[in-house]
Amino acid sequence: MQNRILLAHGSGGRLSHELVEKVFLPLLHNEFLSRLDDSAVLDLSGRVAFTTDSYVVNPIFFPGGDIGRLAVYGTVNDLAMSGARPLYLSVALIMEEGLPAEELHRVVTSVRDAAEEAGVKVVTGDTKVVNRGSADQLFINTAGIGVVPEGVNVSGANARPGDSIILSGTIGDHGIAVMSQREGLEFSTPVKSDCAPLHRMVADMLEVCAEIHCLRDPTRGGLASTLNELAVQSGVGIAVEEEKIPVGDGVRAACELLGFDPLYVANEGKLVAAVPEEHAQRVLEKMRQDPHGAGAAIIGEAIAEHPRRVIMRTLLGARRVVDMLVGELLPRIC
Amino acid sequence: MQNRILLAHGSGGRLSHELVEKVFLPLLHNEFLSRLDDSAVLDLSGRVAFTTDSYVVNPIFFPGGDIGRLAVYGTVNDLAMSGARPLYLSVALIMEEGLPAEELHRVVTSVRDAAEEAGVKVVTGDTKVVNRGSADQLFINTAGIGVVPEGVNVSGANARPGDSIILSGTIGDHGIAVMSQREGLEFSTPVKSDCAPLHRMVADMLEVCAEIHCLRDPTRGGLASTLNELAVQSGVGIAVEEEKIPVGDGVRAACELLGFDPLYVANEGKLVAAVPEEHAQRVLEKMRQDPHGAGAAIIGEAIAEHPRRVIMRTLLGARRVVDMLVGELLPRIC
Repeated sequence: MQNRILLAHGSGGRLSHELVEKVFLPLLHNEFLSRLDDSAVLDLSGRVAFTTDSYVVNPIFFPGGDIGRLAVYGTVNDLAMSGARPLYLSVALIMEEGLPAEELHRVVTSVRDAAEEAGVKVVTGDTKVVNRGSADQLFINTAGIGVVPEGVNVSGANARPGDSIILSGTIGDHGIAVMSQREGLEFSTPVKSDCAPLHRMVADMLEVCAEIHCLRDPTRGGLASTLNELAVQSGVGIAVEEEKIPVGDGVRAACELLGFDPLYVANEGKLVAAVPEEHAQRVLEKMRQDPHGAGAAIIGEAIAEHPRRVIMRTLLGARRVVDMLVGELLPRIC
Repeated sequence: MQNRILLAHGSGGRLSHELVEKVFLPLLHNEFLSRLDDSAVLDLSGRVAFTTDSYVVNPIFFPGGDIGRLAVYGTVNDLAMSGARPLYLSVALIMEEGLPAEELHRVVTSVRDAAEEAGVKVVTGDTKVVNRGSADQLFINTAGIGVVPEGVNVSGANARPGDSIILSGTIGDHGIAVMSQREGLEFSTPVKSDCAPLHRMVADMLEVCAEIHCLRDPTRGGLASTLNELAVQSGVGIAVEEEKIPVGDGVRAACELLGFDPLYVANEGKLVAAVPEEHAQRVLEKMRQDPHGAGAAIIGEAIAEHPRRVIMRTLLGARRVVDMLVGELLPRIC
């Protein structure tokens, strides 16, 4: 194969087919993808969750992951946040002419590894190539399909006053890892992206308590924006305690140095849950048994007061409103 | 709202939500999308078709359509080419910082109109914004879900010797329309994109003959590449007659002027079918009753000879091999 991606790799002609046969099929082949038809045909029934996300992270390789891993886990997590068991993914690449073929191969290898780890199949895909300068290396879209088990009814609109708000671990790792790599910053405590698939932990949580009200992964916009979304969608207030929100040393140092608030920095392997208070402790214990939930903590509760607002009791004992992210903190971190 | 898209519209924070509330929800709202959860949850059962495509056409507005219309019809058609009834779409936008908000609004309006026309619902979505110069205005990914009716079994691998090869109308219109707009060319017979949803015609065709073997839309790579794909996947030869392949006057003139072969120019509202010969005439007549199949013609047949190759009898009576597209004829036409 050529050393670099050419426009002709997106032509639908001979080089497009070569790309499929030499890169995609050897790495991703399965009974669906290998048919090379316009759609994959899947046997499904019940409540089917369907989601999509595009990934434009820069750089495409960063400590703890890369755009391929991110694209798989991100969509797996979006399915999991609806309570669904993730099953199938589509993967669509937009490549910039000149992308080194070796980098493409590494990314597709990551897609394969991440999909295997998460137990999902890439069943359909697409590749486009745009002229040099019309995209930045590589963008990936994944859409995903999963099945929601009977009795599960998770939605951002379901939080109720009294619910405990659980966070699965430290915040800000992904955003700081990507930014450090991009800007060539080095911290004495290196920060790695937390990107990880959360669906197995979610399945365990739902086994302990099928009535979990809300699940959401605080990606872009960080924990602060996610808490605000839940407060607005559910029409409740949310009160959290700063001292209960775990932040790693590296992230804390980087944020202090750079003037960022970790509440607004992106995560790719964390979730927030609103759980009826009487089940919260058991759910928390279950989460802590999972490697992706080892640092889980109850950080606050949903309340009837100040609906649609998030209030934080700070380390100093003051109470402040935590707003949704205004402006753009760190562009292109996912 | 701002006049232009800012990086902060992709932040996951306040401006991202404003974009959803002021542009996407007013135009696209339905019971799934309006929940604003991480996934849409759909009731489905049976054989579910799943497909994805990214659209990077340049310019984003062209005679006969725009990138929004293309993104809906393209994925609707990919579902239809598997014999599926299209039901649900995801829409994911990658916007370049500075995109005029008015253009975004026009494109999303087109998405709405096209989805309504096709009878599909946009149930989930995503927006990303990349820095100026890191993408070219707007890229759209759509993934789609449909249901394949019982008894239908369409695949590019199903063509059999003796099958009639039917083409639904003139070729090359989309590619020439986009290229003319991009290069500022004017032809005495203006060429408009043929972009159109084909699923209703496909449903009618399958009603006449449930045993249709192959369906494929000759998009990138043109008719020549599609015929080659079917020949290779099915392990048959395909023999077509040049005089039977309809080409519009404008496309013919443009191709002569520019040195293009219409066999390799993209289409966005055409299909090729391989149909058992005994049903071909009835299928053809049904297609001709549809506005998108008025120009349908039997252009050749699948044969046992020269498997995996496409041979064309030319207007002059010679026989030549029609290869898959080599290189890139017209980049970024879809």
